[in-house]
Amino acid sequence: MCELLGMSANVPTDLRFSFTGLMHRAGRTGRHTDGFGIAFHQDDGCRVFHDPAPGAHSPLAHFLREQPIRSRIALAHIRRANRGRVSVANTHPFQRELWGRWWSFAHNGQLRGVKRWPLAYYRPVGTTDSEHAFCWLLDQLRQRFETLPKEATLCRAVAELCRQLHALGTFNALLSDGARLYAFCSNRLAYLTRRAPFGHARLIDATLQVDFSQEAAPGDIVTVLATRPLTADEPWQALARGALAVFRDGKRILTDAPPAQRAAPAALRRRPRAGEARQTA
Amino acid sequence: MCELLGMSANVPTDLRFSFTGLMHRAGRTGRHTDGFGIAFHQDDGCRVFHDPAPGAHSPLAHFLREQPIRSRIALAHIRRANRGRVSVANTHPFQRELWGRWWSFAHNGQLRGVKRWPLAYYRPVGTTDSEHAFCWLLDQLRQRFETLPKEATLCRAVAELCRQLHALGTFNALLSDGARLYAFCSNRLAYLTRRAPFGHARLIDATLQVDFSQEAAPGDIVTVLATRPLTADEPWQALARGALAVFRDGKRILTDAPPAQRAAPAALRRRPRAGEARQTA
Repeated sequence: MCELLGMSANVPTDLRFSFTGLMHRAGRTGRHTDGFGIAFHQDDGCRVFHDPAPGAHSPLAHFLREQPIRSRIALAHIRRANRGRVSVANTHPFQRELWGRWWSFAHNGQLRGVKRWPLAYYRPVGTTDSEHAFCWLLDQLRQRFETLPKEATLCRAVAELCRQLHALGTFNALLSDGARLYAFCSNRLAYLTRRAPFGHARLIDATLQVDFSQEAAPGDIVTVLATRPLTADEPWQALARGALAVFRDGKRILTDAPPAQRAAPAALRRRPRAGEARQTA
Repeated sequence: MCELLGMSANVPTDLRFSFTGLMHRAGRTGRHTDGFGIAFHQDDGCRVFHDPAPGAHSPLAHFLREQPIRSRIALAHIRRANRGRVSVANTHPFQRELWGRWWSFAHNGQLRGVKRWPLAYYRPVGTTDSEHAFCWLLDQLRQRFETLPKEATLCRAVAELCRQLHALGTFNALLSDGARLYAFCSNRLAYLTRRAPFGHARLIDATLQVDFSQEAAPGDIVTVLATRPLTADEPWQALARGALAVFRDGKRILTDAPPAQRAAPAALRRRPRAGEARQTA
């Protein structure tokens, strides 16, 4: 198993607080020691940092915990290898260019037989199920749309393709095209949105807390996603199994739940109560 | 104008010494302050570090000067922008996947009209001539060969394509497919090969010297390429104008000079004299 971390924000935001919690799970509080990576989408570019070493002890991870690299979209991954050896090529997030945009992708789970799915344009460089799945997904998008389609059309297509991958096993995944962050939940993915009035947050895995009222401006909206909640005192919400949530500028712009759950995805549609809102902030 | 640095070695080697010299040109001894990047090809993977900030003062560059990241192929670039704004997306080296391999590319020069050359498969993310040229080059390779061709065939194709780009202006470029380092010289690119017996080297741009006899094993072969020589006391050799040199495992495996120069590429074919060999090492 691996763990995921994602962020969507309406202003360039650094992810050091959450990233520090995640890195503790990569060798201190958790055993995800087979490499880590983080992608920062900045303007049209994408900076990806990879290290096949354990994140808890990696000098690169230490550097990234100290340096405020700000972006509106970031996604990170810590690996516990099941398919594919420990190597740079097998370290998430993966990235490819489609329609002149950088796409990044990180995945938790196993997908039985995905490597038999044919690929037309994109080829994996490493040997993981995950990279094959990513290549297949981009292949499908490329075949359907010559250029970037309208947002609603694109989101529907991504939801449908994610659901096909989900049918092969476990597909908890974060995907970004630089403008949107797509989060698909097979069985484990949670999120929370921080906005004014902001409050405190305390990491579960490290002795570190932050007072966001001192860090954030009143209009800031920042959504953080993780395989398991990273803070002890904030109202993380689980995504429904089989659901795709899409975030842009920190806000959830779409939740595409599977047909069986469309009638009552209460946990997702529920608005935070007043007390919760204060607690979230 | 920009500056380039490349390395091909037969053992995983860190590039910190040369990289330190290059970074001094990015804000101290030179004015290439519009971003820097370095790509390390490691096994099948490729780790690329980008920073649109001046390399001489960048915390990331400082980190990379301290950390021994070892690879057989690396290529770096410091930018002085002429086309395309200063941004992550416009920072070299660029990378794309072709035939399930990571390709990386860095370029010095301007190419008049290259953006009018049509692209079939790869699209630039940024707005530089350089990235367009890289996309075009990979497009052409992809259209000619469905999978990785034989080395000699591939090298000939790369040479022919580089020469087409060279005809548009200035194309000093480093390109790698993870196994080979291709170096094309329009008007300025030099290289040197270090091998036993190893000696000392002193940077031109910084107060730093190294005794390679203390660092290298007897069988090590390391070739370093740069737009302008980085050390004061080693016999750098200029590549001929219009020539492509291809390196693998530190050795030059091919020099494809333009037809007019094929008769007498003396500077390239000359074997080092005994005294020089000791000096190079």
